[in-house]
Amino acid sequence: MTRIRLGMVGGGNDAFIGGVHRIAARIDDRFELVAGALSSTPEKAQASGQALRLERIYDDFKQMAIREARLKNGIEAVSIVTPNHVHYAAAREFLKRGIHVICDKPLTSTLADAKKLVKAAEASDALFVLTHNYTGYPMVRQAREMIASGQIGNIRVVQVEYPQDWLTQDETFKQAEWRTDPARSGAGGSTGDIGTHAHNLACFVTGLRVESLAADLDAFVPGRQVDDNGHVMLRFEGGAKGMLWCSQVAPGNENALRVRVYGDKGGLEWAQEDPNYLWYTPFGEPKRLITRNGSGAGDAAGRVSRIPPGHPEGYLEGFANIYTEAANAIEARRAGTESDSAVMYPTIQDGLRGVQFIDACVRSSQRNAAWVTL
Amino acid sequence: MTRIRLGMVGGGNDAFIGGVHRIAARIDDRFELVAGALSSTPEKAQASGQALRLERIYDDFKQMAIREARLKNGIEAVSIVTPNHVHYAAAREFLKRGIHVICDKPLTSTLADAKKLVKAAEASDALFVLTHNYTGYPMVRQAREMIASGQIGNIRVVQVEYPQDWLTQDETFKQAEWRTDPARSGAGGSTGDIGTHAHNLACFVTGLRVESLAADLDAFVPGRQVDDNGHVMLRFEGGAKGMLWCSQVAPGNENALRVRVYGDKGGLEWAQEDPNYLWYTPFGEPKRLITRNGSGAGDAAGRVSRIPPGHPEGYLEGFANIYTEAANAIEARRAGTESDSAVMYPTIQDGLRGVQFIDACVRSSQRNAAWVTL
Amino acid sequence: MTRIRLGMVGGGNDAFIGGVHRIAARIDDRFELVAGALSSTPEKAQASGQALRLERIYDDFKQMAIREARLKNGIEAVSIVTPNHVHYAAAREFLKRGIHVICDKPLTSTLADAKKLVKAAEASDALFVLTHNYTGYPMVRQAREMIASGQIGNIRVVQVEYPQDWLTQDETFKQAEWRTDPARSGAGGSTGDIGTHAHNLACFVTGLRVESLAADLDAFVPGRQVDDNGHVMLRFEGGAKGMLWCSQVAPGNENALRVRVYGDKGGLEWAQEDPNYLWYTPFGEPKRLITRNGSGAGDAAGRVSRIPPGHPEGYLEGFANIYTEAANAIEARRAGTESDSAVMYPTIQDGLRGVQFIDACVRSSQRNAAWVTL
Amino acid sequence: MTRIRLGMVGGGNDAFIGGVHRIAARIDDRFELVAGALSSTPEKAQASGQALRLERIYDDFKQMAIREARLKNGIEAVSIVTPNHVHYAAAREFLKRGIHVICDKPLTSTLADAKKLVKAAEASDALFVLTHNYTGYPMVRQAREMIASGQIGNIRVVQVEYPQDWLTQDETFKQAEWRTDPARSGAGGSTGDIGTHAHNLACFVTGLRVESLAADLDAFVPGRQVDDNGHVMLRFEGGAKGMLWCSQVAPGNENALRVRVYGDKGGLEWAQEDPNYLWYTPFGEPKRLITRNGSGAGDAAGRVSRIPPGHPEGYLEGFANIYTEAANAIEARRAGTESDSAVMYPTIQDGLRGVQFIDACVRSSQRNAAWVTL
Repeated sequence: MTRIRLGMVGGGNDAFIGGVHRIAARIDDRFELVAGALSSTPEKAQASGQALRLERIYDDFKQMAIREARLKNGIEAVSIVTPNHVHYAAAREFLKRGIHVICDKPLTSTLADAKKLVKAAEASDALFVLTHNYTGYPMVRQAREMIASGQIGNIRVVQVEYPQDWLTQDETFKQAEWRTDPARSGAGGSTGDIGTHAHNLACFVTGLRVESLAADLDAFVPGRQVDDNGHVMLRFEGGAKGMLWCSQVAPGNENALRVRVYGDKGGLEWAQEDPNYLWYTPFGEPKRLITRNGSGAGDAAGRVSRIPPGHPEGYLEGFANIYTEAANAIEARRAGTESDSAVMYPTIQDGLRGVQFIDACVRSSQRNAAWVTL
Repeated sequence: MTRIRLGMVGGGNDAFIGGVHRIAARIDDRFELVAGALSSTPEKAQASGQALRLERIYDDFKQMAIREARLKNGIEAVSIVTPNHVHYAAAREFLKRGIHVICDKPLTSTLADAKKLVKAAEASDALFVLTHNYTGYPMVRQAREMIASGQIGNIRVVQVEYPQDWLTQDETFKQAEWRTDPARSGAGGSTGDIGTHAHNLACFVTGLRVESLAADLDAFVPGRQVDDNGHVMLRFEGGAKGMLWCSQVAPGNENALRVRVYGDKGGLEWAQEDPNYLWYTPFGEPKRLITRNGSGAGDAAGRVSRIPPGHPEGYLEGFANIYTEAANAIEARRAGTESDSAVMYPTIQDGLRGVQFIDACVRSSQRNAAWVTL
Repeated sequence: MTRIRLGMVGGGNDAFIGGVHRIAARIDDRFELVAGALSSTPEKAQASGQALRLERIYDDFKQMAIREARLKNGIEAVSIVTPNHVHYAAAREFLKRGIHVICDKPLTSTLADAKKLVKAAEASDALFVLTHNYTGYPMVRQAREMIASGQIGNIRVVQVEYPQDWLTQDETFKQAEWRTDPARSGAGGSTGDIGTHAHNLACFVTGLRVESLAADLDAFVPGRQVDDNGHVMLRFEGGAKGMLWCSQVAPGNENALRVRVYGDKGGLEWAQEDPNYLWYTPFGEPKRLITRNGSGAGDAAGRVSRIPPGHPEGYLEGFANIYTEAANAIEARRAGTESDSAVMYPTIQDGLRGVQFIDACVRSSQRNAAWVTL
Repeated sequence: MTRIRLGMVGGGNDAFIGGVHRIAARIDDRFELVAGALSSTPEKAQASGQALRLERIYDDFKQMAIREARLKNGIEAVSIVTPNHVHYAAAREFLKRGIHVICDKPLTSTLADAKKLVKAAEASDALFVLTHNYTGYPMVRQAREMIASGQIGNIRVVQVEYPQDWLTQDETFKQAEWRTDPARSGAGGSTGDIGTHAHNLACFVTGLRVESLAADLDAFVPGRQVDDNGHVMLRFEGGAKGMLWCSQVAPGNENALRVRVYGDKGGLEWAQEDPNYLWYTPFGEPKRLITRNGSGAGDAAGRVSRIPPGHPEGYLEGFANIYTEAANAIEARRAGTESDSAVMYPTIQDGLRGVQFIDACVRSSQRNAAWVTL
């Protein structure tokens, strides 16, 4: 089985997330990065592509899509790792030519773009994989499996949060700059950048959808054009209630994504910064620490773990699991079969839900945190 | 200096909080419990009083107030540890006779009672101390002192929560029974029993008042008449925002009261179950662990600590600090002086704010979590 | 039932452990402190006694023992809280007059004294209780109960440690001064002050005796006359092996006493600074967190707990449990009965073992850490 | 710059550590695995090589060394990931032909082999890199840097431990089987497999060598031929003292490698299972949590970190750092230059010290834990 030929849009020399995608694609050796349009600046696109030893370097993604689609051994899949506002236009070009898309989140910078992209994906034979990477962590899969199998009973309460502190003050470096510019990031600031992760994680783990929410968003740093703190109350289908907090101005928090789910039979708690642990309390019994690949971990976690318990896997391995699931699905397509039922990755529908979440937060906050439906 | 002669209303044999108050009053040896109306059932009042070796045992609190006020060496202070609906009537009797009152929280079971009790206290020369006991923890005092001195800058975000799991299922034992009966506990369930603690803690630590809130309350256990889970968004005076979560149906949580405060210069985090630790992050520097009586702890914590760092003090010592502060104030009254400016205890105004908080939560929730002012 | 009349030797105004004993004696209201020889300096003895409102104040312990023994309502028990070198002489006077002794650890400053005191105790009708207070923590009792019932199987490995940092530099304040003076503390420094606690805890929890040890002791601070760091390998009866580390020069450690026990069926871990938690791993299953008074805690812990899980009890409550066990035993003596079989406190034999431990450490270290028997 | 052409000896389909080496070599994309002698069973060697898409598959390592050395584009480096007893013979073949060797630890199964291999390496122009992988963790580098710069002062005490539980019972699966067979693993069991890691980590972090040790080793599981628990007291050059504990029979421990170092100015603590954290206490100040790539982390950690703080890197990234350091050194050789002075990897001398450590433990234990020099 040959490696999947992969291209990349965005991810030039000084980008952050592009490098993460490349490592993620490499860890399990299922992809080979051969082509790229790594920057909208031609010189940077060339230099970045050469540094990565790419076989084919392009100046823009449309040209790349056209050319690669014509090549006998052109790319089979493309990773889109640009700022948010470019996702739609770039993804569309590859989808329409049958090239599988692996796209960073949030799906798009506007709800209108998201809806158009859903249509483009539906019209295409290609797969669409969204890198809501936290769903790749083994213990997140474990939590989902335990909830699905009824181990905590009917879900009542979901507490999810994603605080950071890197935007506590006004910042002007590259990562901060585009993420606080609504033209490039979309209308949501912290809600778009990390709130969507929290929303996605809560839904993934519980298997529930948010029906409505009430959001109180703030831009605490003077002059900031998008929210840097979001307080959101959630109502899930079926009656569960939740709270979501995202913040970029909470000193002492790095990437403190955390989810807690409580049902009538038990509770589960997971924190991204210590991802190899899942706390499980069957009601009326002592709390238990389930570890990745350790006693008590089940199949869903096991199939995305690489090494023994006590040797921590981290963010890159969780991210790699999304790529490896994509590889599983792509190879099944190659073979003309269905992928194994255990294969699981965030879809364009998840992406649409994420953009709806951002949109609902912004709408609610503009109406004094009134309840709005997603 | 003789010990302060103390009486008690409520707290008979099978009560929980009465025993806590008695230990708290004993730890620093400033009080002597000499009289009590420990139960509304005469036989139980007698048996409980004898078991405690009380000098004077009463069948009802009004008789006790009348008699003790007339005695030359009658009680100087009374602890009221009954279910909530009795607080008002009992406290009034002692206040009107100049006997200092130490009353459990919440202040009363209704807002109307709370307002009347405030008037009664204002009309009395006696002191009124409310046992919002978590304000007695040394590291809570430390947090308040650090915030007041500007160490975390202007406050932006306050996250406070108090989850428990003991009412995850329908329960009929004594403690559960009256706490889920609105006639005795008041209109708030989890909001009244523990949400008030969370509200009080957030306000105490930050020095800020909640101006308005939006609350989504639920009674998840079938048949329960009061809320067992509360999700609340908070707006503080001056622009800070907060979230408050209280729950009695979150398996794996015992008394997981926790407060986190973030300003433009730093952050603080404290958890009641590990009360000797305070996490402090000056923005841009590593997180620091400040320990009770350890390096980095200041005067406000030091004056309410008893033993060296690393030897944990707990809930009873924190509770005792409220009693000891009450003793400081009462002894100053005896002496006709002002108590030291460092002396600090929850007042009847704090109690009124707490009942307003419960009332606002209930009103908001009835209006689909609309914003209401306190 | 009247309170037990208690006297105290040592524990004047600027002492540390005397105050701890007094709070411990008060918490459960079983004792009444009525007499004391609180200092060998008469003025200080008077002032300290008056501050504590003692009924009878003495200048020296021998006079106190003689007088109290003659009084109709003289003390029934005495707490000895002096520096170590006074324990023997003081305890002897009370034992010989039938007054129960509650003595701080280590038992004596020399092995010769310890042996003489054992004989004095055997010759007396009075009880002897040693305040190896860590055995009073509920979760330590829980660990002992679980091991005794076979839940971790045959014990193979015991890791115990007690690091502190307060003597990292040369110190001259009172607590440091006598504890680093071999004439008053005995030949062991860290081994005597805290190593004995670690040794006692390991033996209490496992129910095993140390048969032999090899100790490498150091005085790292220039000029220090007693060890401030001890590394000890242990061999227990029955074949279990252990390591013990005590240190007063380990920056970042306050009172980090910790014990871990591993058998062929499971493991247990407990840390004094977070005393309400006991970690239990049945081999091949997830680790479990047993909490004081929470699910999974048994009778041995329950009978020495006061408040619900999640409301931490601390050092003073654990210390109080020793006093309350002493009260249980003393009241049984009063009644002419045996105390309940669950009553448990450190005895003079435990004290002798502790002094033998110190002596063995010093002997071993002098012989280049050769193995010596206790 | 082309990728370094890499071969592998051992690491067939059902091996554990071979897969780890391959991921580690891939993460930073500096190597390309092109050839292998993955098993001593020809069929398995073929099948494993094909599964990995190797260009050249060999049945035995000697043949591979000979052939690759003659190829124009033969391998530049080889990873040796066999059981311990094969390391010497395999490494020798490649060293003598100038092919760089990256070898798993311990260096060899006997001290005699280790000494011969040192000579072989000295006689070769090729580099020798030993995968004591824990030295690749960024926060381990951070600790080393802080100690070297004097931040904790003169080192007094080093506590290091590596407990596991996977051999608590008798096990017969592949990993357990060869690791408990002295013919393949060497005379040390837990001491060889994990004790060497602990020893290496302590020395790496402190920059000190162990001069002598006293070891009490046990084989607790009936019939086991090598130690499964080791208790070791250490004496370092310069007067620091230490304890080392390794165990494979400690239920509840997965890979709980942990090192604590205390000097006269401060202390450091690091645990492998939570590797992104380093605890630092300057004496007399609050404990600080230094995080990978976070505030307070320095250059030594920064140059081996990939992603922002709060996104955990794990075991594979730490392991990859050893490979990337090897690549740095190999590329410098290609270029005929010295590698950057910051480049750092475990050498054959570290490997010799590790085998001397095992040998000393076994010798000491056979002599009733007498002190022996390394």
